[in-house]
Amino acid sequence: MHDINLEDGDILAKQKELAKKNEDKLNQHGVNAVNVMGAIGSGKTALIVAIYEKIKDNYRMGAVAGDVAGTDDYDRFEVAGIEAYNLNTHSDCHLDAHLVDHSLESMPLDDLDLLFVENVGNLVCPADFPLGTDREVVVISVTEGEDMVRKHPKIFSQTDIVAINKVDLAEAIDVDPEVPKKDYEEINPHGRAIFTNATEARGIDELVEALELDSI
Amino acid sequence: MHDINLEDGDILAKQKELAKKNEDKLNQHGVNAVNVMGAIGSGKTALIVAIYEKIKDNYRMGAVAGDVAGTDDYDRFEVAGIEAYNLNTHSDCHLDAHLVDHSLESMPLDDLDLLFVENVGNLVCPADFPLGTDREVVVISVTEGEDMVRKHPKIFSQTDIVAINKVDLAEAIDVDPEVPKKDYEEINPHGRAIFTNATEARGIDELVEALELDSI
Repeated sequence: MHDINLEDGDILAKQKELAKKNEDKLNQHGVNAVNVMGAIGSGKTALIVAIYEKIKDNYRMGAVAGDVAGTDDYDRFEVAGIEAYNLNTHSDCHLDAHLVDHSLESMPLDDLDLLFVENVGNLVCPADFPLGTDREVVVISVTEGEDMVRKHPKIFSQTDIVAINKVDLAEAIDVDPEVPKKDYEEINPHGRAIFTNATEARGIDELVEALELDSI
Repeated sequence: MHDINLEDGDILAKQKELAKKNEDKLNQHGVNAVNVMGAIGSGKTALIVAIYEKIKDNYRMGAVAGDVAGTDDYDRFEVAGIEAYNLNTHSDCHLDAHLVDHSLESMPLDDLDLLFVENVGNLVCPADFPLGTDREVVVISVTEGEDMVRKHPKIFSQTDIVAINKVDLAEAIDVDPEVPKKDYEEINPHGRAIFTNATEARGIDELVEALELDSI
């Protein structure tokens, strides 16, 4: 079981405390970390791999593959040559700071400069759980429909970089990618929305720049 | 806040009790109910509308639009002429039996034969919360990738009808819809996977038949 309603400040405080511990640990090892959230199939893994291809000579990069079950994303990271850790939540719809700490314990942090933490695929639960990363990115696919931002205001209001992915499919499915972009900019005026297509490396330079990383 | 880990049999028992109450209430009013689950953008609303078009002369049909926020799906049901109720969960990643009971209280159950309950868009949380419906359907979109069943074994193992939607896009995005179909049939040998495309009404007759409904 999981996912019980609790308006419980103590639990949020505990999560923040655990997240702070991760942040301190990552800082001690000089690792810059990014929490990548988004629905299933939005293209999180493919975008992380595309970023890796742009920066791999400048950073020693690792990735945590968060999923309810299976090793599909972990396998993709491995194939791409990324130092990866598979993190299955079993029934949970999000990572939390404690789970991430487990993966940090198993990764060679001293050999890394940069760590992408790919969250479990949905736009609801990950919004409430800080992990101790330096940055957050939300990936949405145009195939999810024009209304995905309006349906999930919380996660978009607190995330400063949004990749609107698979833009090459927008016309075929009659979705205007400007709609979620506009909705996002209304919810989060300081945020930056970037049109991407991981398979053709479209928008990846912009994404790398928004993350303040240096391309090759 | 929401979504706290609790291996708590009491909570599951309570949810089952509330679901049983809904079931009894629906039965008293002669309403057949279907819980429709699936990720955001999988096409749940469009499929429900496509089913409605096939059966509307035979059944008085209603729909509950479950979403974290907004009225996008509710508006679509209204435009299609379906008696609809908007059910926002605010921060919850699923409907539960208590929330559904609220919507039942507001709907004209005596004027309905059939009720579709569209759950919040993700494949993790709704799996754990029985609503008291007679049937469950999971909708997946081929755009979510070939691995969506492997990543969410729980929901597929307990759901007997799966619509693999947007099959018209499969070739363009290089996804083989036979892969999730095969994964599903392995996890759930009694289940039925149906290839659908809501916008062209492909597979809707099969879906109607699987739900044991009569087409026009």
